[in-house]
Parts: sequence; structure tokens; C-alpha cells
Amino acid sequence: MAISNLEQAIADAGGAVPLLRNSKIGMYVYPVVAHEFSNWRDEQRAWRDSAVLFDQSHHMDELIVEGPQAEEFLAFHGINAFSNFSLNRAKHYVPVTPNGHVIGDHIIFREREDKFILVGRAPTSNWLMFCAAYGKWNVRIRHDPRSPSRPDGERVLRTHYRYQIQGPEAPKIFEKMHGGPLPEIKFFHVDWINIGSKRVQALRHGMSGAPGLEIWGPYEDKSYIHATIMQAARDAGVDLVQCGSRAYSTNTLESGWIPSPLPGIYTGDGMLAEYRQWLSSEHYEAAGSIGGSFVSDNIEDYYVNPFELGYDFYIGWKKDDFVGKDALAKMKDGPNRKKVTFEWNPEDVLKVIATAFEEGTPAKWIDFPQPNYASTSADMILKDGKMVGMSMFNGYSFNERRMLSLGVVDADIQEEEVLTLVWGEPDDTGKTSTERHRQAEIRVRVAPTPYAKEARENYADSWRNKKAG
Amino acid sequence: MAISNLEQAIADAGGAVPLLRNSKIGMYVYPVVAHEFSNWRDEQRAWRDSAVLFDQSHHMDELIVEGPQAEEFLAFHGINAFSNFSLNRAKHYVPVTPNGHVIGDHIIFREREDKFILVGRAPTSNWLMFCAAYGKWNVRIRHDPRSPSRPDGERVLRTHYRYQIQGPEAPKIFEKMHGGPLPEIKFFHVDWINIGSKRVQALRHGMSGAPGLEIWGPYEDKSYIHATIMQAARDAGVDLVQCGSRAYSTNTLESGWIPSPLPGIYTGDGMLAEYRQWLSSEHYEAAGSIGGSFVSDNIEDYYVNPFELGYDFYIGWKKDDFVGKDALAKMKDGPNRKKVTFEWNPEDVLKVIATAFEEGTPAKWIDFPQPNYASTSADMILKDGKMVGMSMFNGYSFNERRMLSLGVVDADIQEEEVLTLVWGEPDDTGKTSTERHRQAEIRVRVAPTPYAKEARENYADSWRNKKAG
Repeated sequence: MAISNLEQAIADAGGAVPLLRNSKIGMYVYPVVAHEFSNWRDEQRAWRDSAVLFDQSHHMDELIVEGPQAEEFLAFHGINAFSNFSLNRAKHYVPVTPNGHVIGDHIIFREREDKFILVGRAPTSNWLMFCAAYGKWNVRIRHDPRSPSRPDGERVLRTHYRYQIQGPEAPKIFEKMHGGPLPEIKFFHVDWINIGSKRVQALRHGMSGAPGLEIWGPYEDKSYIHATIMQAARDAGVDLVQCGSRAYSTNTLESGWIPSPLPGIYTGDGMLAEYRQWLSSEHYEAAGSIGGSFVSDNIEDYYVNPFELGYDFYIGWKKDDFVGKDALAKMKDGPNRKKVTFEWNPEDVLKVIATAFEEGTPAKWIDFPQPNYASTSADMILKDGKMVGMSMFNGYSFNERRMLSLGVVDADIQEEEVLTLVWGEPDDTGKTSTERHRQAEIRVRVAPTPYAKEARENYADSWRNKKAG
Repeated sequence: MAISNLEQAIADAGGAVPLLRNSKIGMYVYPVVAHEFSNWRDEQRAWRDSAVLFDQSHHMDELIVEGPQAEEFLAFHGINAFSNFSLNRAKHYVPVTPNGHVIGDHIIFREREDKFILVGRAPTSNWLMFCAAYGKWNVRIRHDPRSPSRPDGERVLRTHYRYQIQGPEAPKIFEKMHGGPLPEIKFFHVDWINIGSKRVQALRHGMSGAPGLEIWGPYEDKSYIHATIMQAARDAGVDLVQCGSRAYSTNTLESGWIPSPLPGIYTGDGMLAEYRQWLSSEHYEAAGSIGGSFVSDNIEDYYVNPFELGYDFYIGWKKDDFVGKDALAKMKDGPNRKKVTFEWNPEDVLKVIATAFEEGTPAKWIDFPQPNYASTSADMILKDGKMVGMSMFNGYSFNERRMLSLGVVDADIQEEEVLTLVWGEPDDTGKTSTERHRQAEIRVRVAPTPYAKEARENYADSWRNKKAG
């Protein structure tokens, strides 16, 4: 009988890289939520100029971890300090492998002393479910996987609805909804607010410096909550723009979070080898895809560590132990790459688009606003023909009138440097999410993360002053 | 109490044009079907190069008309000849107003002597439902409206599934599915075929000259039929590409059908005035939108007649009478515009796209593959600054590597002429489906409909030889 697990799938494909580079899973989808409510340009504009409503009910896994050892279990499998984790706080939770490579990240909420809710991509949920059994932890776990990518008219239910309201005008809506001034909620803290006749939990969040709240509750309340929010916005005289799934995934380009690092679980022995046998060939780690111009024989070249993503200040060094602690201690002093924003040269972007009007094999289509056609992207960043980084998540910002991407570069690369992004894959990939294409080069300017318009304007001359390295 | 009907909505908005130009309905959506299964470029390529599976179960109204007077009723309200309408045929059914303006069109199937199924956009279904009551016809009508545009995870059910398999490799799949050679089915004729253990009705259809079949049956059979088709394709060794909703709506650009004429029902007295009172303000005719650069005070300037759309050869002149017969007889000798394809100048398209990378108000975003952001589009076509036609349905064809649109031009405009399309609306529209923008001009070459690649290649020099008129 055929064995269906990740280890076997890697062997069958001749390696993890060919497995993932030839995945047939198709486009990475933000499911169920309408693609556009108005249009994606105005939906992007709303989070900068007025207020936006994100429906985050469908695109993330949810994991509920309860029980006597819930805190201990989570503290042991994440890099984060837990000493300050009171009931009214949330954390950006990051697990790494024993070798110190990032597995993924979740937002984690503490509902009770012994109950946590985690929200994020599958690699973190899968890893924690495995770890609970592997370490015989006294925890109960409930997993609510993300909604199907192509439900095709079938009904989709979740455990919780999840909304976020963001933007400079958002506070007026909160006050109207709450029926008076909101309690003061500090960044990444949680409190209870009123929405109509319901009491709901709210996380203070923020993108690009604008204030915002994330709220959640039982999925059956979703349409009541939605209607109440929309009415509160009307009553407050605020143009609250519902954000569809096309604009949604681009918000991170302005705020600087990389949603899609490759989980560092394809190599390593011990618990990692057991994990690869635990994972079926249907799981994200086996069925997902790597896309982009960077092709290495060594899957480890796609891994990142917490220092590279700017998560080192989360690390709970004072904890007795946690998975990856020793490895991180060794990585600490580098060399580590650093996270940056790449601003794509408009002329070069337009040259790529122009090939869609020529005979023959075109350059890879840049789909607006998000040409991120794989679950993990890795496009080569070159300086003087030598690879100095990778671009990991890309898209167009109408607010900035630019294609941007997030990624990592070698420590010695400086802001303002103009590098070269190689766009498109070097040979025919088996992925179905991209047409046959030829490679192209796009100049990119290194900019800070989060990307600030001010920075770009100050550096407006850099395209003229600099050639691609 | 407020009256909710189209007549009142027109009065409230100060006219039909402001009503429709400021509609808040949003993007015209092809609902429920996934946006992409692989990617829209390859999905377009498949109908030219291999085989494509269209899921047409959701974007059209269905109307079942039965009863002793079913044939007589339909013959009286469509322009088509009915004398040759045997059980094994389908027709492209076109109703017009008493004034001879097109209301819409449906594909009509005859299931029994006294039972017809009609499939298409809402204006034709709405009109027929009204007419049945208005004329006291002895018919039973069941209406299954198109699926909701944004079902938001709720279940969607239809009366029938409806699939189309098209492309040069399609016959291999039919034979495999059927379990042997298919009966010979002539164009727009219907016969029964086997799909696995089911007998289903199949309409011989065709796009761009490639053979194809449309099949339908009870919606509860949908997933069985889908799985059987996909397996038959694998068994036949054919790369059957599932087409998502982004690529789907562009197929008409190559085949030449205009899906979205404005129903000519906003003016006229008698039954038309009564119809406007019958239609609620929620119906397509009141809630839909007009988009594009052409703004006229007179809603009739957006109407088209059957001669202009190339439907004159359908007209059953020998029928004793039908709605619009007298008007059509007067229109017959013109002047009438004619249907053409506009091939958009790539340089000008790229200039419009380039404004998305500049500060300030951009030109209207061209969303790929279909920037058709209203239920009815009307972009001005100019020659020497004078309007000589309108562009009515646009999109990008990866097969042709061109933006194309379908529309009508004055009779004296010749193929190969280079005209000017005005892109974007002249002032701020109240529509939510477009961002604020400025107008731009795009040269368009007049090409035949259906658009043939050969023609373009023969005329390849015309961009260089001709300036925009």
C-alpha cells in the first residue's frame, strides 16, 4: 500500500525543491471573501485615507490550545517570552525548528489562563499538533483549518468570524458601535467592546501607523456583526470601504510583514524526520508550492531565521528552554540577512508588461495587485550578478503607485542601493499557476521596512543616480 | 409609502442615464466559479490549443416556459423564426421592444413541444415574465435567477448544472465520455449523450471554429458529471483545462458575441411604460450600471437594434406578427451601425498602464483580463474628433496578445481604419467599481468580427501607415 507522507513525497519527487517547484495546487487563494466590493484601488486607498473593513474569517487556520499544560506547551514551542502574557494581551507567536529556522507565525490570544487561540497559516498549526503528540503534552487541541480555496457554491462555516477595521477614520466607527468612548486599548492588547447588543473581544492592531481593531466571535454572529458595523459607519458619517480578497493580501506590503516564509522542516533528523512522516502528502508542507526565480538544489537555502525577519526582539532568552534556543544562540551573532522592502523600477515593470503584447514567449505576467502565484515565493536579488537576497512577497500598492516586495538581503546591503530582481522562473516549472514565460530583470531599490512614502520621496533621485548593481 | 419601481427610480435620479451611471452595484461579477483554476493566460490558451471546461452553472438566469401557449408566446416576443424549431434544435433568441430595440438575448432549448428552457442575462427573463402577465398568456413560467455575486460562504443551488467543453481536443473527450463515437450533432442542434451512467442533453456549440458541446442536467448531478468529465479527459490523454471566471468572460472577444447591450426599455409608452412600473428598483434594469466614456442625455443613444448586432438573419419576417415587427421593418433599410472588433493599440494601452506608476490622478486602470466594470459598457469611438461608434465589451486575449473590444460603428467605417477610443469617464461617476481617474485616448484598429488572427497579421502594417482618425 502506498505511503502518503511528506518524507515519501520528497523521495518520490527527487527532493523537496522539485516537489514544491512542481506543485499542482494552483494559485495561493484568499478564499470565500468576494474579490472586490468596490474596486481594489479604492479598497487599498481606504486604509490610508478613510477606513477599511477586512473580513479575515476565512484565509487563516485557527488552533485552540487548552489544558493544564497549554501555557507551558506553547512557551516551549515558540521563541517568544511568555512571562508578560496576561489575559488582555496578544502576541505574534513564532515557532522555529530545533535548527533555528522559522516554521511560521500566528497571532496568539489568551482567552483564559489555560486557553489560547492561535490564528495564522497552516505550518504553525500543523507543527503544534504534531508537537503535542510527540512530546506527550497534557493539552487539548482543536483545529479549524482555513476555508476551502474553491468552495464552488458549497457552504463554508468557521468557528469564529474575524473582522478588522483600520484607517484614520476607524475610531469614529468604534465609538459609534460601542455607544460611547472606547476603553483605552494599548497596541496588541485585548479588551471587550460593544457591537450593538453583543460584547466582543477586540485586539488593538495597526497598519502603517493608523489605528485599528480586530474583533472576533462565534461565526453564527457574523452577519449581525457585519450589519452593525456597516450601520455604525453610516451613522458616524465615515466611508467604510469593504476590502475584497484582491486588495487584502497587499496590505502587508505597506506594513512590512512577510506572510509566507518556507517552513524549515524539510531537512533535519530527530523530531523533524518524524514530523515529515507525520505530515501527509495533502498537507500544506507537501502540497504547497515554491515559486520564483531562485532555484537551489538545497531546500535549506529557502529557509529564514527570526533574526532575518526582525523577530529577534521577541526571543525569550530567559526561558529555561524552548525548541531552537541553542541554535538561535549560535545564530545570534550572524551573519544574518535583514528584512527590507524592494521598490520595483516602474520602467522595468512596464517592459515586462509590454511583452504581453508581443508575439512569442512573454515575460511572466505581473498580475495586479498581487502576482504572488505560489505559497512561498523566492525571487533572486542580484548585485553585480551575484545573489545577495531574495524577494519573498510582492504586489502593487495604489497608495504608493509602486510595485513593492518584501524580502531579505545580506547585511552589508544598504538602503537606497539599486539591485536586480530576476523575474520569472529559469525553466519550465510544473506549477499550473503560471504560464510558460521567459525571465526578465527588474531593477529594485532597497527601501526600509515598513516602506514609507517619505523615504521614497527623499530618495527620488536614486533611479537616476544609480545603475543596478 | 415609497414606491419602488424603475419608473420612480428614474424620476428620483433625474433620468435613466444618471440612474445607471451612478449605480452602486459594483463590478459586474461572474459568480461562484473560482477565479482561476490554473491561471487565466493558460485557461485562455486552452480553448485555442487543447480543450477547456467552462462551468456555466452560475452566471446566467434560467427561465422555463411551459404550457399550451408556450411556443406561441415565445414566437410573439422574439424576432426569431420559429417554423423550423424542432425538438433537437436550439436558437439564439432575441426579443426587442415595440420600438425595435434589443432587450437582450437568451439561448433557448425546446425540451418538449410545450416546454422551453431559456438561458441568459436578466433583461430577457424579466421582460418575458412581464409579457406573460401583460398579455394574459396561457403559460407557466419558472425563473431561476443567476447566483448571487458575493455569496460570502453561503450555499448556492441552481436548477441545472451547465458545462461547456470546447477546443480542438474536445472530441477525444466526448468519445471517451460517451463510450464510443458520438451521434453526429449539427451546429446548434441538441442530442442525448452518455456521461458515465447518466444520459444528458448536449448542444453542439463552437467558439472560434473549434468544436464543442454544452451539456446540462439536474444540479444535484453536478459533481458526478464534473468528475466523470475530468476522468474521461485523463483517460483520453487530453489536457482539459478548467476555466475560471476571470478568463471565462473574455472568450466572447474572440468569438464576437456582445453579452451586454443596454435593454431598450427606459423610454417608450404603452407596454414599455407599464414594464417600467412592473420592474422594481432592485431589478437589473434599475440597479445595473452604465460605464464608459460615452455620456449622453438621451438614454436611447445607448440602445442597439438587431441589424447592428448582426442578428437580422434571425428575423422571422413570415410570422404574422411579433413585438417590434413594424419597427424592424422600418429600420431594415437603415441607416444602421455594424458590429466590429476594435484592436487596441498596445503602445497606447501601455501608456495608460504607466499612469499607475505616476503621482496624481491616473488614467482608468485597465484590469486584466477584463476591465469591464459595469453591466453595460459604452466607450466613445471617435474619428476626426466626431463620434462614429461605441465600444461595448472589452478585454485582453492572451491568444491574440491584444486588448480587444466589441462594439458598433457607423456603416461607412471601413475595416483597417484606425479610430480613437476614449478610455475612462468624463467626470466623477458615482459608481463604486472604478477609482477616480482622468480620461485617455487609445487608438483602435477596426477589425472584423469574429476577430481573426490572420486578419491582424495581414494588416500588421496598418499601425505604422495610419494615424488615428
